[in-house]
Amino acid sequence: MALHIHKYGGTSVGSLDRIRAVAQNVVKQREAGDDVIVVVSAMAGETNRLESLGQELSNKPKNREMDVLLSAGEQVSAALTAMALDQCGCEARSYLGWQVPIVTDANHTRARFESIETKRLKDDLAAGITPIVAGFQGVDGGGDITTIGRGGSDTSAVAIASALNAEECRIYTDVDGVYTADPRIVDDAQKLEVVFFEEMLELASLGSKVLHPRAVEYAANSGVTLRVLSSFIEGQGTLITFEDANMERPVVSGIAHAIDEAKLTVVGVPDVPGVASTILGPIAGASIEVDMIVQNIGSDGTTDFTFTVKRRDYDTAKGILDGIIKDIGARDVIGDNAIVKVSVVGVGMRSHAGVATRMFDALAAEDINIQMISTSEIKISVVIAEQYLDVAVRSIHKVFDLGNNVTVA
Amino acid sequence: MALHIHKYGGTSVGSLDRIRAVAQNVVKQREAGDDVIVVVSAMAGETNRLESLGQELSNKPKNREMDVLLSAGEQVSAALTAMALDQCGCEARSYLGWQVPIVTDANHTRARFESIETKRLKDDLAAGITPIVAGFQGVDGGGDITTIGRGGSDTSAVAIASALNAEECRIYTDVDGVYTADPRIVDDAQKLEVVFFEEMLELASLGSKVLHPRAVEYAANSGVTLRVLSSFIEGQGTLITFEDANMERPVVSGIAHAIDEAKLTVVGVPDVPGVASTILGPIAGASIEVDMIVQNIGSDGTTDFTFTVKRRDYDTAKGILDGIIKDIGARDVIGDNAIVKVSVVGVGMRSHAGVATRMFDALAAEDINIQMISTSEIKISVVIAEQYLDVAVRSIHKVFDLGNNVTVA
Repeated sequence: MALHIHKYGGTSVGSLDRIRAVAQNVVKQREAGDDVIVVVSAMAGETNRLESLGQELSNKPKNREMDVLLSAGEQVSAALTAMALDQCGCEARSYLGWQVPIVTDANHTRARFESIETKRLKDDLAAGITPIVAGFQGVDGGGDITTIGRGGSDTSAVAIASALNAEECRIYTDVDGVYTADPRIVDDAQKLEVVFFEEMLELASLGSKVLHPRAVEYAANSGVTLRVLSSFIEGQGTLITFEDANMERPVVSGIAHAIDEAKLTVVGVPDVPGVASTILGPIAGASIEVDMIVQNIGSDGTTDFTFTVKRRDYDTAKGILDGIIKDIGARDVIGDNAIVKVSVVGVGMRSHAGVATRMFDALAAEDINIQMISTSEIKISVVIAEQYLDVAVRSIHKVFDLGNNVTVA
Repeated sequence: MALHIHKYGGTSVGSLDRIRAVAQNVVKQREAGDDVIVVVSAMAGETNRLESLGQELSNKPKNREMDVLLSAGEQVSAALTAMALDQCGCEARSYLGWQVPIVTDANHTRARFESIETKRLKDDLAAGITPIVAGFQGVDGGGDITTIGRGGSDTSAVAIASALNAEECRIYTDVDGVYTADPRIVDDAQKLEVVFFEEMLELASLGSKVLHPRAVEYAANSGVTLRVLSSFIEGQGTLITFEDANMERPVVSGIAHAIDEAKLTVVGVPDVPGVASTILGPIAGASIEVDMIVQNIGSDGTTDFTFTVKRRDYDTAKGILDGIIKDIGARDVIGDNAIVKVSVVGVGMRSHAGVATRMFDALAAEDINIQMISTSEIKISVVIAEQYLDVAVRSIHKVFDLGNNVTVA
């Protein structure tokens, strides 16, 4: 008898019918002889609705109160899921963060887990009761409600799986697994049976919406096996597990893309030590996350300094740079918020030379100009103009033969 | 510096604008030098919405889960009210039942208060912070969320007022006080400045929707002075306090009516001991509340046994009686669910004879047949056909000269 953690996202509990389907799915696994602990998100749209109420009331709502407000969403879906399971004849009991308790630090709206008490959950399982845990929330040492930030219910599920040494943490969502590329762009995109944590981390960070990177990282660090699968259609989904040297892998596992990118270049910066931090310091100070950074050394003793930010931060970042170029002696700031990032990912590329060349050739064949390049051991990312997104993804998918790729497990 | 408890009902926190108005009202009282603790209901409609979700999912949702579900409503309004106060420059902090804690017994959906810890509330007040307490909810000894039943936030406010020895417990609602009769029926109905607890208890039980009877009873028993006032318009509302022998009072303080009544008569019951409990036992067993009971002794050794129930329980009660009349040897069951109850209430009638006669005369003058009568020391209730409701209330209001009545305080 194995213990599985099931996490159901907002669309999976988005209506009473969906909640009934969740209950049936849980019952099925219990009937197969396994124990299940369910972690639920708020019903689709509810977190946004509550958040808007708070933001409409106050231009700077206190984080403590925001957490009280938002955590009500998961409270409702946890109670409803428990009722639906009871109705199926499967005894269930809801738990809010403070009831488990799931103890976090006191960083409201972005708390981190400190400890999870497992006694009540274990007692329930021993008594044949299925615990339904409200995701996304915890309680700090002072007894205040905390939330762990967006995408948090995935991380809640992983933390519970880790605390209870669960065999598998199943993330039920509205897609049936991880694909070699976005199926809306690439017709013959293939579902992957297995993805390694390292690859999944890159894919999640690079724009694949299937899993929150924080949950992937938490699972990798705590040795929790993840499986992404659909709560709408049957299937084995995609297993996310640790790299196995004996497992044959393709060179490239998948292609990710991010469309919410923007690029800023400070032109004609005097090429002296410390210039990067002079430019990026004020950006970080405004809590703007910087992704790719490229610096070209010019011939006239100056350099061009380019970096990418999320598109929503573009205007703020541009304003900050405009205000400091005089002080740093730069010539100008130019920007482009109509760019996208396309990346190939795969642990296989470690042992295969020429992956970058094949990717760049594919883009060149389509006359697509590469504006920036960034690489790591298992991924290559390029920035291109957004109008070439679909063509780029399709041509790269083809050049690596991913449409015919069946991962050998 | 006095401590006031403010309780705001569902319509008073029914929109963000209303919540802003609540915040301004609290700020005004704090600026006058008083301390305030705010108790809030769920936003209007929210409790019903959540309850329907639960009932749609399960034909018999567990009470424990129903409490988790419903308590989310007050959680949201408490957080929003705290945000609105902060936005007005008045530091505030929300508390859920378990955070105070407000400890109750484990009777889910109808829990009773056991104790209220006042330390956090007092510490906040001492630090200039206004606590916002979610009404209607508590926590039992096992750490499970409880709710205290419908109308419960009024009772929460009274319990907190009692625990903290507050000077006044102000119930803000959508009416500006207690009236001599329903102003929608009687044009010259007068707002009462003062109502005694005994009268208010009768008025609340008899259909006046201003205050929940349980809250009135709790306040009377724990010596909490109540004031009912509008959260929409300025005014002193109605003070509900203890009877003062020196206070001059009219014979009748007010007229209450209840339109959700129904009447059942078991005809030709053998007149033997124990027949009342034989009839009412199964009714009570179905959790149907019985209000007035009248038994007429006939001349043929049989009796007619009549009682009233809430209209929503009429069909169930009728079905139960139809099933038992054979066993008890009764002839028939007849019923009428088109009746209303009209009552006059006033501590003054204790010392004034002839109140009943004046009431009955007024009804006779309008040709209204009285179907049942029930009296207590300070009230007289009659059951009449529902089409005569308005005429009856107006004529009784007139016969006791309530339109010119100004309570002498």
